[in-house]
Amino acid sequence: MSSRLDFELARLGASALVVLGADGSEPDLASFVGGARLGETVVIAPRGGGPRLAYMTEMERSEAAATGLTLVSPATLGLASIARRGLRGGARLAAILGAALDASGVTPGRLALGGSWAAGEVAEACARLGEAGWSVVSAVGALRRARKEKSAVELASLRRTAAATCDLFRGIARRLASAETRDGLLYAEGEPLTVGRLRRELAVAVAEAGLSQPRPAILAPGEEGGVPHAAGSPERPLRGGESLVVDLFPRGRLFADCTRTFCVGEPPEHLARAHADVLAALERAHRELRPGRRGWELQLVVCEVLAERGWPTPVDSSGSERGYVHGLGHGVGYELHELPSFGESAEPEDGMIEVGDVLTLEPGLYEPGAGGFGVRLEDLVAVGPAAGENLTPLPYELDPRAW
Amino acid sequence: MSSRLDFELARLGASALVVLGADGSEPDLASFVGGARLGETVVIAPRGGGPRLAYMTEMERSEAAATGLTLVSPATLGLASIARRGLRGGARLAAILGAALDASGVTPGRLALGGSWAAGEVAEACARLGEAGWSVVSAVGALRRARKEKSAVELASLRRTAAATCDLFRGIARRLASAETRDGLLYAEGEPLTVGRLRRELAVAVAEAGLSQPRPAILAPGEEGGVPHAAGSPERPLRGGESLVVDLFPRGRLFADCTRTFCVGEPPEHLARAHADVLAALERAHRELRPGRRGWELQLVVCEVLAERGWPTPVDSSGSERGYVHGLGHGVGYELHELPSFGESAEPEDGMIEVGDVLTLEPGLYEPGAGGFGVRLEDLVAVGPAAGENLTPLPYELDPRAW
Repeated sequence: MSSRLDFELARLGASALVVLGADGSEPDLASFVGGARLGETVVIAPRGGGPRLAYMTEMERSEAAATGLTLVSPATLGLASIARRGLRGGARLAAILGAALDASGVTPGRLALGGSWAAGEVAEACARLGEAGWSVVSAVGALRRARKEKSAVELASLRRTAAATCDLFRGIARRLASAETRDGLLYAEGEPLTVGRLRRELAVAVAEAGLSQPRPAILAPGEEGGVPHAAGSPERPLRGGESLVVDLFPRGRLFADCTRTFCVGEPPEHLARAHADVLAALERAHRELRPGRRGWELQLVVCEVLAERGWPTPVDSSGSERGYVHGLGHGVGYELHELPSFGESAEPEDGMIEVGDVLTLEPGLYEPGAGGFGVRLEDLVAVGPAAGENLTPLPYELDPRAW
Repeated sequence: MSSRLDFELARLGASALVVLGADGSEPDLASFVGGARLGETVVIAPRGGGPRLAYMTEMERSEAAATGLTLVSPATLGLASIARRGLRGGARLAAILGAALDASGVTPGRLALGGSWAAGEVAEACARLGEAGWSVVSAVGALRRARKEKSAVELASLRRTAAATCDLFRGIARRLASAETRDGLLYAEGEPLTVGRLRRELAVAVAEAGLSQPRPAILAPGEEGGVPHAAGSPERPLRGGESLVVDLFPRGRLFADCTRTFCVGEPPEHLARAHADVLAALERAHRELRPGRRGWELQLVVCEVLAERGWPTPVDSSGSERGYVHGLGHGVGYELHELPSFGESAEPEDGMIEVGDVLTLEPGLYEPGAGGFGVRLEDLVAVGPAAGENLTPLPYELDPRAW
């Protein structure tokens, strides 16, 4: 990523990148520090030079050394003196940044700032840096662009997380396939199968797989699945003959993201039709995907497929809560939502699908309100020279017994 | 918290509090929005007025409404127009904040800024707000002070998480108690018991309890426990006769935090002595704890106990990596480390122990390097009118079979 990063820094007119994180797992830091377990961390990357890692306590010295980066120690940062002088919050952050920049040989000028941090302290520190001759611009776009093309190590990590996510789906399919239906409700081992129970079982499986869930998965039955972001209410019992949208996005070193929609028992005709239409849209998106296309072009193709089948889409019925109501996908990496963008207004390079991208394709159809439903099918795809490789090659069937 | 918050805003000379979060679980947001599942969120609390919640997508309208706060909708924020005008990053954030402040009746002046957000976007947004007549100070201290005294609802939530944490410890004690020792190594069900295996089993138990672990627990055997923050290496097998520091800090709505140290089989004499000394220090800290004392006073008392027993302490051997090498404790709440502070240089009100505080007491002794060990015992305590109530009333024994 370093030559691309230098290009981005030059474009911003910045002499250095500064990345802040309260934790080494902060997405902008993660691509520099790997899996190191660090608390408050600052990475300084002078333009044209290698990145340096400033850590805040000698207790983390071995973790810091394991990153392989040039280190800036707590002593070099002058943390003891900063504490003695009673500097806190933004004043402390400004003093740390000043010392880290100085130790990295960066002289006052323009900084590109990435990572996330207590907002008020950033505001105060930037005011102080301004008095010392620094100006600050956002590195959010630069870092996202530098991370867009995955490295071989990152792709291997994504593959592992995607494979583990497929196993999670197979487990859910087995659970649903073995459920018993009584008076329309699903039971497993004599107990009602609720969203909350499925969520707990999933959490255990996620932990067993060594993954985490920074935000809980979507397990949205029937009308709850009719709103794309509704997570599902714990007490809601699952029913036969209704849709169940399962959208999993666990994190390994990087994220994976995949959605399937289930229906235990005979699906009503409108649900079966919606599912067939979403599947047709997804298959078309897979076929159309190749380097050099814009995400937005693929969105237009999918809208055409769904409009032909009679559904409202964002292109011809913007603001509708019925039909296809969202974008086609997004890049995936250290953040769940990265580049490429599938939006109409994406900058040309941000919206361009290129070799090395990892992205989702996730058409869906929604009917909100009483008696409503949701259907979404989402694959995670690695973009190769000629086409995409599906990293989540699972069945698409509504019926878990067909899995 | 609202009268305390108004007091803090007045002290800062701020006409409103603004809290930013990329997610509703951001600690500064959590006390306003409860458990609502929100993405990007802004809370505006005009001084003397009720807090308002600005949410970014109509898909989150029901979650936003469930907070009970006055809402500022995406339409009021003008998000569609912001997108049309191509505003991104810091420019978008500044436009959102301008609209949210305007909708809340706050006129340009000084803002207290809390929460966390992409640092570069904050820098850019604050520069723009500055041009429009706003100045920005950090609300970090103000929010920590406003959250120091727990509400009844928060205390009930902390109690539940602490009780679940106790169950996690009992599970680990059972696992260790039933282990078999062969050639000095621990085995369970015929397989070596490693740090990694214990960590996976713990992750499953945490998930089953409905808790999360934003940062992984510390499971640090022998010499790895000799460095207070070392997390423990996955491949490290556990051995009989060595220390195992187990420090769990899972999150429910709020965090809990508790540490015990185990030794399977006969502890070497130096370990047994260190354990007795840490226990004496902890018991003394419990006895001394009452409203009106400073955290630092308790640290001095504990240093005295340990120095009398021949150990280096931060007071008389600052910088030592042997003996007692850290602070006595910290407040716990929506963040793992909150007020009160046990530091010498804490502001008087930040370092004062008061009724309604929830805090840890966690003396420890460390011997780093080959053949080293760690012993730490940590309780989570709710401060009442006369004394503390131990929310983690677990055994302190090294021997898991004595649990």
